Amino acid sequence: MRLAREMEVTRKNFEESLEIVTKAIEEASFITIDGEFTGLNVSGSSHTGPLDTPEERYHKLLEGSTDFLLIQVGICAFIYDGSAKRYTAKPFNFYVFPRPYTRHAPDRRFLCQCSSLDFLVSQGFDFNKLFREGISYLSPPEEKRMREEIEQRHQQHQMSFYSPGLTSPDGGEQTVPKGPIAIPEEHSEFINNICCKVEDFLTNSEDETLELMPCTAFQRKLLYQTLGTKFPQEIHLQSKSGEKNQRFLVVTRVKGEGDIKKKEDQKQQEDFAELDRAVGFTKVMKVISQSGKLVVGHNMLLDLIHLLGHFFYPLPESYEEFKLMARCIFPRLLDTKLMANTQPFKEKILMSGLSDLKKTVEQEPFCKSDVVIPEGFGHHYMETEQLHEAAYDAFITGLCFISMANYLGKFQDPPAGILPPASPLLEPFVNKLFMMRLIDIPYMDLTGPDLKPTRDHVFHVTFPATWRTSDLFQLFSPFGNIHITWLDDVSSFVSLAKKEAADSVLKTLCKKGTPYRITTYDEFKRRGKEK
Amino acid sequence: MRLAREMEVTRKNFEESLEIVTKAIEEASFITIDGEFTGLNVSGSSHTGPLDTPEERYHKLLEGSTDFLLIQVGICAFIYDGSAKRYTAKPFNFYVFPRPYTRHAPDRRFLCQCSSLDFLVSQGFDFNKLFREGISYLSPPEEKRMREEIEQRHQQHQMSFYSPGLTSPDGGEQTVPKGPIAIPEEHSEFINNICCKVEDFLTNSEDETLELMPCTAFQRKLLYQTLGTKFPQEIHLQSKSGEKNQRFLVVTRVKGEGDIKKKEDQKQQEDFAELDRAVGFTKVMKVISQSGKLVVGHNMLLDLIHLLGHFFYPLPESYEEFKLMARCIFPRLLDTKLMANTQPFKEKILMSGLSDLKKTVEQEPFCKSDVVIPEGFGHHYMETEQLHEAAYDAFITGLCFISMANYLGKFQDPPAGILPPASPLLEPFVNKLFMMRLIDIPYMDLTGPDLKPTRDHVFHVTFPATWRTSDLFQLFSPFGNIHITWLDDVSSFVSLAKKEAADSVLKTLCKKGTPYRITTYDEFKRRGKEK
Ligand SMILES: Nc1nc2c(ncn2[C@@H]2O[C@H](COP(=O)(O)OP(=O)(O)O)[C@@H](O)[C@H]2O)c(=O)[nH]1
Ligand SMILES: Nc1nc2c(ncn2[C@@H]2O[C@H](COP(=O)(O)OP(=O)(O)O)[C@@H](O)[C@H]2O)c(=O)[nH]1
Repeated sequence: MRLAREMEVTRKNFEESLEIVTKAIEEASFITIDGEFTGLNVSGSSHTGPLDTPEERYHKLLEGSTDFLLIQVGICAFIYDGSAKRYTAKPFNFYVFPRPYTRHAPDRRFLCQCSSLDFLVSQGFDFNKLFREGISYLSPPEEKRMREEIEQRHQQHQMSFYSPGLTSPDGGEQTVPKGPIAIPEEHSEFINNICCKVEDFLTNSEDETLELMPCTAFQRKLLYQTLGTKFPQEIHLQSKSGEKNQRFLVVTRVKGEGDIKKKEDQKQQEDFAELDRAVGFTKVMKVISQSGKLVVGHNMLLDLIHLLGHFFYPLPESYEEFKLMARCIFPRLLDTKLMANTQPFKEKILMSGLSDLKKTVEQEPFCKSDVVIPEGFGHHYMETEQLHEAAYDAFITGLCFISMANYLGKFQDPPAGILPPASPLLEPFVNKLFMMRLIDIPYMDLTGPDLKPTRDHVFHVTFPATWRTSDLFQLFSPFGNIHITWLDDVSSFVSLAKKEAADSVLKTLCKKGTPYRITTYDEFKRRGKEK
Repeated sequence: MRLAREMEVTRKNFEESLEIVTKAIEEASFITIDGEFTGLNVSGSSHTGPLDTPEERYHKLLEGSTDFLLIQVGICAFIYDGSAKRYTAKPFNFYVFPRPYTRHAPDRRFLCQCSSLDFLVSQGFDFNKLFREGISYLSPPEEKRMREEIEQRHQQHQMSFYSPGLTSPDGGEQTVPKGPIAIPEEHSEFINNICCKVEDFLTNSEDETLELMPCTAFQRKLLYQTLGTKFPQEIHLQSKSGEKNQRFLVVTRVKGEGDIKKKEDQKQQEDFAELDRAVGFTKVMKVISQSGKLVVGHNMLLDLIHLLGHFFYPLPESYEEFKLMARCIFPRLLDTKLMANTQPFKEKILMSGLSDLKKTVEQEPFCKSDVVIPEGFGHHYMETEQLHEAAYDAFITGLCFISMANYLGKFQDPPAGILPPASPLLEPFVNKLFMMRLIDIPYMDLTGPDLKPTRDHVFHVTFPATWRTSDLFQLFSPFGNIHITWLDDVSSFVSLAKKEAADSVLKTLCKKGTPYRITTYDEFKRRGKEK
């Protein structure tokens, strides 16, 4: 039985949790974040090559990974408790799902990868809760577009109220751009019934309002048009949502134009309030961004790309613009996977996967970080493992960061018990994102140009489709051991283990009439750019 | 509380249900089918135009809808009970999900539409059950590719057993195309431990087999290579899956080559048996296809396209080829939505949506179909509504079909109580699929060329972006009422209500220096083809 998930946030408790989350972020010394997605990439694992450049990695992710959906966001605020000299952790687990909040809201399409869903459900991920109770959200551009649409719709409907003198299309001038529509024959009976009902309501009833029964959007449009013309200055119409999201019209008694104007403005305010609620989870990300605080993740490039694209702005084509955008939205980022793979940690940490890293940094020469989770914030995270639950992964990312940071603090004079997140000792790791499976470039540098290691020991070879690994081994045998990176079945990169042997390669192997062709890595890249 | 879902089929009860389903299909007089999907189309509703042709509709679906996933299939077998002179219905509800059954199986990516998932979960669809217990499946081409891969892998591994004389790459010939890999330094300790374990097992243990603990695919590859060379002719190796799908190696004691050969063949048979199980739900669709029985759906074009693409063959670019493929896989199809929208039903059935249609055909002049669901087949379908559950929708599609078919039977001499599904009275509806929102072509004809109504009353107009509906009304006001089909903000089709007025349009409106341009619909289509 899972303990109460106090810090689990869905659309049911989002409004009242927003305060608690905002307060925790504002108090935090640093924040950790982790995301779960509906899939990783459109093609197989060959997708990321060991001899990519960070820029190529960005474009591969942009093209192959951004159509998947971010479905769970774990955020953990680590608040330094000066008196107790330790951190208090407040983990939050958000289910997020961009459910359209009205008929006019964006109806997003997204990709899923079967093996990812299979894996998530085997780890206990609750997809019914996600789709039913996930917190919806709008990015700033989407919010802006919706706001404009609401204004436009109100203007348009405003005019239809004040110029009742419009007549049917085939004759007589029209003032309304859209023009009234003739009532189709199969709807006339329905419309006439409603007119009588309203007539009766106005003459005989004492009530303030009359609720009509649910009907289709087209029927509501006909009703707005007909009732607006039949009872000018006497009624105000507004659409409301009943249970199961059925829409129906509410007729309100009004006295004269001023009253109508007031009702219309009120209706517009309600639409804007609804829009504000629909911004949803984006508000949390805005608080984190504006806090300017250190945001820590584990192997966080994919998380960052999804967070920027989902809750801020469409990702730019240009790699440089992406770096600028990332820096301006999250001024201070740190990737614990990079930290674990860089000295002085690299030789002490064999396996840098999150759960392995956690076990390693709990033993010598590191020390287990002393962190407490207050009551009401999912205390059981301390004892039971919830791997691949976003908030748990964010929580243990924080534990790893604290242990590694404190290890750096030991070499200071005097040694710092707890290294503050702003410490210059952390600068080598700040705003640098870990590059998976990339041999000679350990990180993407958000603060400036990326590392450009010389790849003179790397050659680009093209050969007949029948060639196998052994043929390449054969060809390069005079130069010692090689590492092959297949590009397709007729070409590959070949990098020499013994770099010094590189300069004799072209001399020895470039001969006329050979079934293969060799160029240097740089030459191949130059030709690629010209195309 | 939902009653037991006896006829609900997931991967837990698929094997034993297969017999019951196959028997029901073979006994059936006709079969109804309905599907649920993760989304409808990639773009908004403007996707299907009222002046499309069926061929254009096919290409729009091919391009915009086939990337969504079919996730639930409802199949209902209607078995005619001669003695009781009524049908017995056996509904089956299949959750289907193409979960990769091994690391080498296809890992499919598919699209979802937020509003569709929101709608399905609000109707009680269980996504956790889908992803955890959905029946996996392979289409014939996928099955063929997997079979070839298994054969290839066995051949390749076969050779590595019989030519232990291969040595490390940097010197000495290789016989294995892939070539053995040098053991990376961080794995050597792990590999050596296992070698000692196997040594000890061979010399001291009595057991037949030794199970090694789970390890990565790369480690298993190194073990196959090292153990194969160290203990030639003494052991046989096989990978097995433990709980949570962890893979581990099993070492079996063998005496000489014959024993190894036997074990290898046995391993290959196990792989083929696993592949056969993985074909899964495709088997049910094959039984339906091969039965050649009448398959009835409601507005079934999208169902058909998904069924063909998921369980048979990739959908062809060519519309004619699609028609051939559909006819050869389902020789006899019938769409109850088309039936309800064609005389003699059209004037008696106002609303042809499935649940409205069911209510209409239960009253005069139709009569409620007399159908019974046997014990153990979800009897409650008779009382409670389960709209949008595939098997329920399939069940009531059958009820509607029977009522409408029997209504046709009444006009026979002598009147037929129950019209047999092979009756010639049904021919006008067979192999014709309903076209949604298409003004003048009611169906797609799978048996021959589609209807080509004259569209001389339709004009293609291009105009400045500022133009609105009223401007088009204005322009065409001399010719009476019009219907506008917007193509984009600078062009639209305009069809005249009064068809006779068509021939004077070009004469009156085609003048020099006008801000608009008009051509006939046919002229516009001809120019489109030339581009
Ligand atoms: N003439 C007029 N039409 C309206 C007004 N409000 C909504 N409509 C139209 O009525 C239809 C239904 O709108 P509404 O009831 O707001 O449902 P929603 O569009 O799903 O929010 C739409 O086509 C609107 O354009 C109004 O105040 N005047
Ligand atoms: N040399 C050799 N390699 C094998 C054999 N069987 C599997 N492998 C390799 O070992 C790795 C793991 O294979 P396996 O344990 O079957 O796991 P699976 O590939 O996930 O089914 C793969 O790279 C296989 O190519 C074998 O009989 N001989």
